[in-house]
Amino acid sequence: MNFLDRIDQPALILDEDTARRNIDRMAVNALRNRVNFRPHFKTHQSAEIGQWFREKGVEQITVSSVEMAEYFADNGWQDITIAFSVNVRQLERIRQLAQRIKLQVLVESAEGIQSIASLTDCSLGVWLKIDAGNNRTGLDWQQVDLVKEFSDQVKRFPNLHLLGLLTHSGNTYRAQTRAEVCSIFREGVDRLEHLRLALEDHGVKGILISVGDTPGCTLCDDWSSIYEVRPGNFVFYDAQQFIAGVCEFQDIAVAVACPVVAKHPLRREVVVYGGAIHLSKDYVEINGQRSYGLVALRDGDRWGAPVPEAIVKGLSQEHGVIRMPGSEFERVKIGDLLFILPAHSCLTVQVMRKYYTLTSRVISTLNRS
Amino acid sequence: MNFLDRIDQPALILDEDTARRNIDRMAVNALRNRVNFRPHFKTHQSAEIGQWFREKGVEQITVSSVEMAEYFADNGWQDITIAFSVNVRQLERIRQLAQRIKLQVLVESAEGIQSIASLTDCSLGVWLKIDAGNNRTGLDWQQVDLVKEFSDQVKRFPNLHLLGLLTHSGNTYRAQTRAEVCSIFREGVDRLEHLRLALEDHGVKGILISVGDTPGCTLCDDWSSIYEVRPGNFVFYDAQQFIAGVCEFQDIAVAVACPVVAKHPLRREVVVYGGAIHLSKDYVEINGQRSYGLVALRDGDRWGAPVPEAIVKGLSQEHGVIRMPGSEFERVKIGDLLFILPAHSCLTVQVMRKYYTLTSRVISTLNRS
Repeated sequence: MNFLDRIDQPALILDEDTARRNIDRMAVNALRNRVNFRPHFKTHQSAEIGQWFREKGVEQITVSSVEMAEYFADNGWQDITIAFSVNVRQLERIRQLAQRIKLQVLVESAEGIQSIASLTDCSLGVWLKIDAGNNRTGLDWQQVDLVKEFSDQVKRFPNLHLLGLLTHSGNTYRAQTRAEVCSIFREGVDRLEHLRLALEDHGVKGILISVGDTPGCTLCDDWSSIYEVRPGNFVFYDAQQFIAGVCEFQDIAVAVACPVVAKHPLRREVVVYGGAIHLSKDYVEINGQRSYGLVALRDGDRWGAPVPEAIVKGLSQEHGVIRMPGSEFERVKIGDLLFILPAHSCLTVQVMRKYYTLTSRVISTLNRS
Repeated sequence: MNFLDRIDQPALILDEDTARRNIDRMAVNALRNRVNFRPHFKTHQSAEIGQWFREKGVEQITVSSVEMAEYFADNGWQDITIAFSVNVRQLERIRQLAQRIKLQVLVESAEGIQSIASLTDCSLGVWLKIDAGNNRTGLDWQQVDLVKEFSDQVKRFPNLHLLGLLTHSGNTYRAQTRAEVCSIFREGVDRLEHLRLALEDHGVKGILISVGDTPGCTLCDDWSSIYEVRPGNFVFYDAQQFIAGVCEFQDIAVAVACPVVAKHPLRREVVVYGGAIHLSKDYVEINGQRSYGLVALRDGDRWGAPVPEAIVKGLSQEHGVIRMPGSEFERVKIGDLLFILPAHSCLTVQVMRKYYTLTSRVISTLNRS
């Protein structure tokens, strides 16, 4: 009896070989481009999967919260960037972390700088968080004077070590074509380079540039001016990345296995046990229709290729409603498993909290050890 | 120092008094209408909050999964309906539950009926799951012959006890006005009543009608033909219910407290630590704009009224971007807490996994004990 035959409720399945191949490919890419590889661990959030990166020589990582930094520090990581602007309410936890590992933080406000400057008993690497066009947060790349002022402020404190300019070009996730991804990626880097030169003129030397987004780091060849990359999603990829042309479906390393509980022949819809609490509510568009992932049938001991035109049209708390083409609809039986390749793997991992490998080994995360 | 001053990362805050008042009001409503009150526990998912229902005389509950039924059975509940069509992969767990508590399940297929019929060593209450217009799952209310056939099938097995017809009119959640809610609610009940009469003609007597949705049970006065109601969301309500006119904002019992980490004066946007992993990605529409909740400022030891025109315009994994009107924007400082009243409280509870009361007591759920 195969492991998949024993699954009785929605389960996040991880294809370890595919994830390891994704890690290897990105590590090689960074090495070839001679940039520092500091992968973002917010996607997998797992000490065990972290080890797969370590086996490829990774020693420096990125996380998105103090909590995540504490978890990975507890699991032996000694050099961590928290890629989230300093939350002044967490100063004490930042202090404790900085006293046991090499810690880098982000600032984008006078309040943020003042707060970490007060941690005089620990040493912190500091990045200025720049908004290079994503319009989420960070100092606007056009506010050159403010960037100079904040650089000067950081340099005034002996416990703070100004490292450089950091951005997340999350707007590449909204690109429709590979050319558009690379154009946004380069635009972000060029804007940081523009700021770096302005700082150099201002007398601030040695400023580094850190960028990080999976689409750009996967697709783009021109890595000039970049000191460091921090992609995260590439470890698993997902339906968004596949549809944007960033990866092949064979690169998608995770799927949620969902038992079929009902079939509705008149509307060619299959209802699965697997809803918003298993997948999250991020979605992609397939032929102009919203779909909460790609749908694959079982193929032996794994999932097969996504079924063209299958749509996860609705998710409620525990139910998923899937519209299937006629031939696949006929093949699916009540009690079968369908596999949903998530729209956005980072959020699916967060809600599912643990993985099963194809050989049924459980891999835990920060959220369920 | 108030408890709220110590919050350093996104926290789900529960106003116990408001939740208890919501429970009391719905219990009284059911009592006055002389229907069986079997509240859905999928919203709060907490043994402790379950006790607040028990104090109001509730002995029978609804859950949305076998896992949740096991949790509440472990916490002393002896009469549980799993309001999710039987998943044939979980037969063994259903058997074990039925051997220790009074268990009701839903069926909507021949496969489902056959599978539970095989559990000859336990007794199960059986509801036929009917789709009365929501178009998610269930036997279409117009398929009268199929409903008769399935009734006959269930009655053939001595371990199965046919209870009646059950629907979830989830389409009331999409209604825009109170009148529309009540019209959909009554339409669902009337369609079940139509089926009930058809079954009676067919010789199947004693069929009960079970419905359950918070909007309908909150707003509608005509409860005729109804044996049982199973609302769940009402315990906390949320932004969706407020905007649809189902509740007042004073009835919303949960909010996510989020530290402010950045301010962007040019676009009047505040960035908080609080993203998709804290709120989920359900949203409401406010003046035609998507918002992932309502935004309130702190008012003493609690949150205040929602700020009109404040929009949670974007959520990434950990960040929330909030657009504020000018006067409130000025009041908010980096390091303050903002309170986001969730778009959909059921999903927010699921991602946050535990509550803090206003007096800082931690209340655990199924997902984090």
